[in-house]
Amino acid sequence: MGGLGGRAGRGGPAASQARRLKEPTELEIVAFERSHFASYSACGIPYWVGGDVPGRDELIARTPGEHRERGIDLRMRTEVVELDAARHGGGRVRSRDLESGAESWTDFDKLVIATGARPVRPSLPGIDAPGVHGVQTLDDGQALLDTLSRSTGRRAVVVGAGYIGVEMAEALLKHGYEVTVVNRGEQPMATLDPDMGRLVHEAMDGLGITTVNDSPVTAVLTGPDGRVRAVATDDAEYPADVVVLGIGVEPETTLARAAGLPLGAYGGLLTDLAMRVRGHEQVWAGGDCVEVLDLVSGRERHVPLGTHANKHGQIIGAGVGGGYATFPGVVGTAVSKVCDLEIARTGLREKDAREVGLRHVAVTVESTSRAGYYPDAAPMTVKMLAERGTGRLLGVQIVGREGAAKRVDIAAVALTAGMTVERMTSLDLGYAPPFSPVWDPVLVAARKAVAAVREAGY
Amino acid sequence: MGGLGGRAGRGGPAASQARRLKEPTELEIVAFERSHFASYSACGIPYWVGGDVPGRDELIARTPGEHRERGIDLRMRTEVVELDAARHGGGRVRSRDLESGAESWTDFDKLVIATGARPVRPSLPGIDAPGVHGVQTLDDGQALLDTLSRSTGRRAVVVGAGYIGVEMAEALLKHGYEVTVVNRGEQPMATLDPDMGRLVHEAMDGLGITTVNDSPVTAVLTGPDGRVRAVATDDAEYPADVVVLGIGVEPETTLARAAGLPLGAYGGLLTDLAMRVRGHEQVWAGGDCVEVLDLVSGRERHVPLGTHANKHGQIIGAGVGGGYATFPGVVGTAVSKVCDLEIARTGLREKDAREVGLRHVAVTVESTSRAGYYPDAAPMTVKMLAERGTGRLLGVQIVGREGAAKRVDIAAVALTAGMTVERMTSLDLGYAPPFSPVWDPVLVAARKAVAAVREAGY
Repeated sequence: MGGLGGRAGRGGPAASQARRLKEPTELEIVAFERSHFASYSACGIPYWVGGDVPGRDELIARTPGEHRERGIDLRMRTEVVELDAARHGGGRVRSRDLESGAESWTDFDKLVIATGARPVRPSLPGIDAPGVHGVQTLDDGQALLDTLSRSTGRRAVVVGAGYIGVEMAEALLKHGYEVTVVNRGEQPMATLDPDMGRLVHEAMDGLGITTVNDSPVTAVLTGPDGRVRAVATDDAEYPADVVVLGIGVEPETTLARAAGLPLGAYGGLLTDLAMRVRGHEQVWAGGDCVEVLDLVSGRERHVPLGTHANKHGQIIGAGVGGGYATFPGVVGTAVSKVCDLEIARTGLREKDAREVGLRHVAVTVESTSRAGYYPDAAPMTVKMLAERGTGRLLGVQIVGREGAAKRVDIAAVALTAGMTVERMTSLDLGYAPPFSPVWDPVLVAARKAVAAVREAGY
Repeated sequence: MGGLGGRAGRGGPAASQARRLKEPTELEIVAFERSHFASYSACGIPYWVGGDVPGRDELIARTPGEHRERGIDLRMRTEVVELDAARHGGGRVRSRDLESGAESWTDFDKLVIATGARPVRPSLPGIDAPGVHGVQTLDDGQALLDTLSRSTGRRAVVVGAGYIGVEMAEALLKHGYEVTVVNRGEQPMATLDPDMGRLVHEAMDGLGITTVNDSPVTAVLTGPDGRVRAVATDDAEYPADVVVLGIGVEPETTLARAAGLPLGAYGGLLTDLAMRVRGHEQVWAGGDCVEVLDLVSGRERHVPLGTHANKHGQIIGAGVGGGYATFPGVVGTAVSKVCDLEIARTGLREKDAREVGLRHVAVTVESTSRAGYYPDAAPMTVKMLAERGTGRLLGVQIVGREGAAKRVDIAAVALTAGMTVERMTSLDLGYAPPFSPVWDPVLVAARKAVAAVREAGY
């Protein structure tokens, strides 16, 4: 077996799982990782930068030494630059030692591609100026922290208002910056419908974070010292001592593309249910470099989340190790927070439903996290989409405070099971005054959705 | 329509829902309530007694006046003492005005029985002594608070270690009492398996609550003033200035039994899916006085919880109002807390599975509420039961701190959908470091359960 570690070293779970199933005498595992780090939690970087997580090492799940102790021939700072995969098994990779520049070919019987994603970095003037930071890797996080500790300025601009953008806004706020989020979209969190995104916008206002919507960045402006001084849009300039790019990522599939492997509409590798690259029985791929089946829309999507990557790793490791497991797909669950505001979504947004030809009704309800009379009951807004006619649940979005985010799991399981909103109204969810109103907010939404489905007819 | 309000006034939701569907000119609604209160949250009483909820009125969902404004002829302090229901609709009830003692008959076309449950009050010597309190009604709560404010003693004994028992232990702790819970069972929380109950026991120890297991109470001992002075078991005496009974409840179906209506093994009324009393098309029953179908075991059970009672009310109100809705059953979800310890369960315990002939495997895992590196990640223990062979989920129990209780909802929905633990391992649950490890604790348990199912064979 040869492996291609991803940027975030996500080949780790696959290699570990394969090793559990096969001894080194049965299966030789070689892993290539071009960065300085093997397995770590990229999702934790905003919290490390923000100071919630005390140090970088806390994010490291497994060091190179620990991988090697488990019988994995991990080659750090070694980049795979060419891939040659035969259709019926076997092949070879050409790798380059990034320290010495030396190159060599390594043969494999089985290959795992876990090359991850790369940040979208638009080719704007000034985008590479000092003071402009991505936050995808531990190196990125360290570079940003270095800038923050050196900077005497107090104005930060975050470009992009998705998960990374809002999490970084919080992190910069904690460093005492005046934070402006410059957002291309109609509202922050484009993974929500705009009406729910507006609630996030209002809450960010309340936290002292300025959000500018409908404003694509046109340039990063630099001062006489060459460092960033502002971010420009068509209409305005936003002064900045530091700029963080939270624009999102795209699959890192350069090698796979060159090798002629099948890619989808988003540029991610296409796999079968066992995470084998389509048409290649001995090549697996997983994590942020693949597209996954969205079980609600029936389409392939690119959903770069560590939770999926870890599941893929288990499944790939089982396959490589001679076992059997499959990944049925996702329903599109994601949770995040900005300070004490919790944001969650699963399933389809209104525009997703329209795009795949699903007629739907949408309802929104206000409820609370606890019984209304219990201390610290916090408001919670739940939006629910259901298919017209059948009443099948299509999606849920939640914005609230404590207890809002993980409530979306109820809907995630219901979506997986193909439940109707009518069936959901009688779900036997946990109730006690400190944890929920007698009708859980998700059930309140389901009841309203039932009424909307009935009223809408077919 | 005539109605029989329950002790906790749970006829309210049914009456309100029926009124939404039918104008007073179409449907006359008479409701009888023997207590001083109409609709209130009995589940909130421990938190009112403990001081989390500032006053009794906070627990009142709707006053008699509010019911009357909605066109419901609510007769307070009026007890129905006889019921005469014809099999094919119609009948009459005899009621007594508890103030004047006057009695009268009221005819009905449709009847709703919402008589609730009554506390189990074992016929022990001294059980009615001053200082011994139940906590089922607002009057009970007020009486207990009066005792607590008058008492100069500082020793409290709680009899019973179920939900009410542990919640009252917390409430008494907050009043500064030394609290001893005297428990008949092997561990506290008999709704959990004993191995999980032991975790609750240990946590209660840590909170300064003494729990004595395997100790049925044999008598309540009184002093020369006739007030309670101790609780006795076969082995010991536990000094007490105040005693709270948290022994549980049983269906209040005295009237229904006398009227020849069908009762189940637990003494609760038996209904069809539309909550109509079996064999009586125009008589509905719901709330704590009925038995419900347990969807996992396929058996009728008595599950006196406000969340079910409220759902029943909606369904009954729809039926009485000429609409249509059904209650498919429960999966046995319940959550509670003692101080910051959260306790949750759904589905079957090991002994339940054995009792209904289901062969099972059981696994237990330790995980955390958040990513391990994120601040305040709290330990969480998840036990999961799955059917041998098929791998179908049978039950989940969780004991932990913040974020533990409502995680059981994931399992509640999965049980409702009849999911296997294998399918659960790929559930797309919300993940971000402040909310969950990359593998949610429920998924960690599911993975271990899959392995156990495979190992166990058929």
